[in-house]
Amino acid sequence: MNYQIILEQIHSDITPLLGQGKVATYIPALSIADPNDFAMTLHLITGEVFHVGHVQKTFSIQSISKVFMYCMALSLFEDKIQGRVGVEPSGSSFNSLVQLEYENGIPRNPFINPGAIVIADMLVTHFGELADDEILQFFRNSCDDFSITINQEIAASEHDSGFRNLALASLMKSFGNIHNRLEPILDTYFNACSIEANTTQLARSILHLAHNGIDPITSNVLLHPQHVKRINALMLTCGHYDASGEFAYKIGLPAKSGVGGGIIAVVPDVMSIAVYSPALNSHGNSLIGTKALELFAAYTGHSIFSKS
Amino acid sequence: MNYQIILEQIHSDITPLLGQGKVATYIPALSIADPNDFAMTLHLITGEVFHVGHVQKTFSIQSISKVFMYCMALSLFEDKIQGRVGVEPSGSSFNSLVQLEYENGIPRNPFINPGAIVIADMLVTHFGELADDEILQFFRNSCDDFSITINQEIAASEHDSGFRNLALASLMKSFGNIHNRLEPILDTYFNACSIEANTTQLARSILHLAHNGIDPITSNVLLHPQHVKRINALMLTCGHYDASGEFAYKIGLPAKSGVGGGIIAVVPDVMSIAVYSPALNSHGNSLIGTKALELFAAYTGHSIFSKS
Amino acid sequence: MNYQIILEQIHSDITPLLGQGKVATYIPALSIADPNDFAMTLHLITGEVFHVGHVQKTFSIQSISKVFMYCMALSLFEDKIQGRVGVEPSGSSFNSLVQLEYENGIPRNPFINPGAIVIADMLVTHFGELADDEILQFFRNSCDDFSITINQEIAASEHDSGFRNLALASLMKSFGNIHNRLEPILDTYFNACSIEANTTQLARSILHLAHNGIDPITSNVLLHPQHVKRINALMLTCGHYDASGEFAYKIGLPAKSGVGGGIIAVVPDVMSIAVYSPALNSHGNSLIGTKALELFAAYTGHSIFSKS
Amino acid sequence: MNYQIILEQIHSDITPLLGQGKVATYIPALSIADPNDFAMTLHLITGEVFHVGHVQKTFSIQSISKVFMYCMALSLFEDKIQGRVGVEPSGSSFNSLVQLEYENGIPRNPFINPGAIVIADMLVTHFGELADDEILQFFRNSCDDFSITINQEIAASEHDSGFRNLALASLMKSFGNIHNRLEPILDTYFNACSIEANTTQLARSILHLAHNGIDPITSNVLLHPQHVKRINALMLTCGHYDASGEFAYKIGLPAKSGVGGGIIAVVPDVMSIAVYSPALNSHGNSLIGTKALELFAAYTGHSIFSKS
Repeated sequence: MNYQIILEQIHSDITPLLGQGKVATYIPALSIADPNDFAMTLHLITGEVFHVGHVQKTFSIQSISKVFMYCMALSLFEDKIQGRVGVEPSGSSFNSLVQLEYENGIPRNPFINPGAIVIADMLVTHFGELADDEILQFFRNSCDDFSITINQEIAASEHDSGFRNLALASLMKSFGNIHNRLEPILDTYFNACSIEANTTQLARSILHLAHNGIDPITSNVLLHPQHVKRINALMLTCGHYDASGEFAYKIGLPAKSGVGGGIIAVVPDVMSIAVYSPALNSHGNSLIGTKALELFAAYTGHSIFSKS
Repeated sequence: MNYQIILEQIHSDITPLLGQGKVATYIPALSIADPNDFAMTLHLITGEVFHVGHVQKTFSIQSISKVFMYCMALSLFEDKIQGRVGVEPSGSSFNSLVQLEYENGIPRNPFINPGAIVIADMLVTHFGELADDEILQFFRNSCDDFSITINQEIAASEHDSGFRNLALASLMKSFGNIHNRLEPILDTYFNACSIEANTTQLARSILHLAHNGIDPITSNVLLHPQHVKRINALMLTCGHYDASGEFAYKIGLPAKSGVGGGIIAVVPDVMSIAVYSPALNSHGNSLIGTKALELFAAYTGHSIFSKS
Repeated sequence: MNYQIILEQIHSDITPLLGQGKVATYIPALSIADPNDFAMTLHLITGEVFHVGHVQKTFSIQSISKVFMYCMALSLFEDKIQGRVGVEPSGSSFNSLVQLEYENGIPRNPFINPGAIVIADMLVTHFGELADDEILQFFRNSCDDFSITINQEIAASEHDSGFRNLALASLMKSFGNIHNRLEPILDTYFNACSIEANTTQLARSILHLAHNGIDPITSNVLLHPQHVKRINALMLTCGHYDASGEFAYKIGLPAKSGVGGGIIAVVPDVMSIAVYSPALNSHGNSLIGTKALELFAAYTGHSIFSKS
Repeated sequence: MNYQIILEQIHSDITPLLGQGKVATYIPALSIADPNDFAMTLHLITGEVFHVGHVQKTFSIQSISKVFMYCMALSLFEDKIQGRVGVEPSGSSFNSLVQLEYENGIPRNPFINPGAIVIADMLVTHFGELADDEILQFFRNSCDDFSITINQEIAASEHDSGFRNLALASLMKSFGNIHNRLEPILDTYFNACSIEANTTQLARSILHLAHNGIDPITSNVLLHPQHVKRINALMLTCGHYDASGEFAYKIGLPAKSGVGGGIIAVVPDVMSIAVYSPALNSHGNSLIGTKALELFAAYTGHSIFSKS
């Protein structure tokens, strides 16, 4: 398959759609993103890399950080996570607090905000207030690139506007499912969201999820094979909030989106993918990024549900 | 891989667990099932079949019928389904009516009761009151076995105790999402649930879902390849009510359970699976059947999320 | 106090508002009501009656019938009601089915639809399928006027469009809180809603609720004094769906509205009131009728919460 | 009516019940209350006072403070409250966060925690961080007793265990319905809850609510007559969480309970009442206190819904 031609076809297909959707505006640093930006990177486990668009453009990874935090937690705590965070899709976004209240402060899964906040709490228990630095190191290590940083301006803005996250954390603490003070947990969480990367770095960072947990370039073992399956399963069932079912239905690949406009995806045993376009659809996922992955699935036939 | 030895190991592993769980009791015909029954069939796309346990024992397929009804609907109506039934996981079971009310009578997906009732309504619009017979023929055709029948006693019992389904149908009708009279729709739905089969027949009936929609034995085209992906995606994200996430997380195969104790599963491009054991876990899925599939995934490494 | 002058002042005050609000349209017979109709009757326990507007105009009493059904049930079944229907405000209308599901099919109070349906079930158990006739007789007796009838056309329309009520009844039956077949219960309920009266008859029918259960004109004992307090308390806390609190806050009198445009109210130990105007506000209560009662409370100072 | 004899009869009636119910345990200072304590005071608008039990025993007024905060707010802000806090019963307690989320951060009424927190926010806007002191002064003034203080130990404990209140405040802030920093608002709220009084002081403090807003002893005007009606209406519809309907139904008097074991009640134009007993029923209201008021209503016939 000629992936470069496919990428260029996708680029050509999505160009007329640029301008649709809305850039996130809840913090200033996100609202200034250029809605015409688009980038897509394919990283094959053979080492080949294919690119199209603004692949050097960095953006905050936002909720994509939840994948890395959960990778760390799976390795560190494994079965201890069970009982504190579930693995079920969350139904619809409107009821995050509702579900949390009915379900006694146990979040549905680690890819919704309250779930990631509990994971942050577990990391703070383990690493202390340097947990955010450990997450950054883990991410740098995953993409074998130590130039990556946290955008402190974005982290500060997230913190200032983060009253819903404070509400979620407080509610869970009232149920006993948060063990540390709220401040360092939320700092860790907001800092992880504010890691900046481009699609080249992001695709590289999850290459091991397409290769049983082993980075095929460095041969470093980053994750247990059993954990790789679980991360991929969670990305499929819970990776796109209340559009996860539709993503699985139309695209059929494990993937995770962030409100910064990035999406990562995995074709198991074949490649990792990262796509970027900051304008969002009504579910809070990159509109063009989702479309690009839909086209990718159609053109290549790659799907975990069947050969095309 | 020696599948026969694996099946026998699974049988041996689950034997001490027989007696756990609870047989469904809401209708008499289900409550008399023997909790010690267990059967498992693997049907490879090469034609090889492996069995263990009471593989001639028939049981009502219950919610597994939702898969066949949706296969028919996808072929017949395709995009017209959109707008009347979604493709998202439903969150938790407790709120079936809640979600339906908030979401204006549009069910989350076709594998929960209200979703299947809308599909039944579409089939009644298309086939008239013979819709149930058409579903039976479709199922017979899928397993290439025309001896299969509907258990009328079970269908009648389902009908008599089906006030929650009547509530769901009435609510959707009040929202305009049911077009026919309630009686023939519910008859169709209850009759489809009351189709009886054994694991041999069930595994055979979904073999095409492991083979791009083509029955590898007869070479009949039963489903469009694109629809196969969608059915498999839906089984993965929505096949086990509010335990769908856990099933994907632990087992990693598209599958659908029924309250009669059956579960069907697909290893894309490799095989179809049917397992039977009537005692249920707290989510209403076969307790032993789920365990058997977990062992199968562990022993074979089969998963859509990675090679083991 | 010169009540006639007060009524005329109210009439003059509300005239500019005629045309606001919306007549109920869910059944044809209601949708043809004239939004300019207005009538108000005060019936003092001394026997004096004051009128303004179209006081001979009849309309279907709709949910006002729930008061009479509950009066009958209190006398007949008393403490047996407890456990099947509560006495708490229902929160907001949006969640009628939600609450019913969470609360295991026990309706919040007898003045919301599911509550009245359970009361209808109890009356059907007691009176058989003639329960609707018994309700009509009770109402006729309460207003000492035997010319009152049920509008069969409205009853039939209610029945044909009553799928939400069927959903509520089915759900409660699935929880075991409905004992009879659904058909006669819903017939009873819809027939009671379709009783027609004018404001003169309505005010007369509840005069005993302002007089410890005794009709001051005929001296007939219609209700136990303890039950009068309870009916009045329920009207205050639950009489106007999710605007009950605001009605108590602004008007301070026990009252019950119907979607046909009528409202009844009680000034304990002083008088009964009926008002009619068919255009409804967003809560489903008569917009002009509510306004008229607000003006009445302001002009007279009558309130159960304090002398003015 | 011989109120002293009635009080003694009530005391005798409730004595066998002492020991039922459970003292609040969420903070240490509350958990040490003696479940055998009981006190009841009637304060007539004529100036006569009747007592029974431990009437010198002080306790934290807890949610009863919400009445005083709302009295202040009505006088200071009047119509500006509308739009930020409603006047509807809240349905059931289980869904405080649920309702708040659906209703965009606008609490149902000022007598549930989120409603009182918004009122505290308004008072902080008006008075700055001395708002708690102003509330204390208002309360002291209402009972004409300047010895009353805030129990700082209780206030500190409330603060330390108040994560659910922090969750409520954060959620409302995320909706823009909290204007100040969370810290001073919650301090104000917890300090008001921690005011200590005995039944003599409490009955005295609300005497004006039985007398059109005028303290009949000092002739001080404490509240506008229109506001008195509204406070009494709110106490009736919203004074006892999800047992408000039952309280209105059985007792028929405006009243407000606190988790410290106190209840205040008003017989409009006749008297004010305070009762104390710290063991709570399942709704969080004083079990013996509720029973005492039920007996009071039965023995005296006092009700806002009818003469007995």
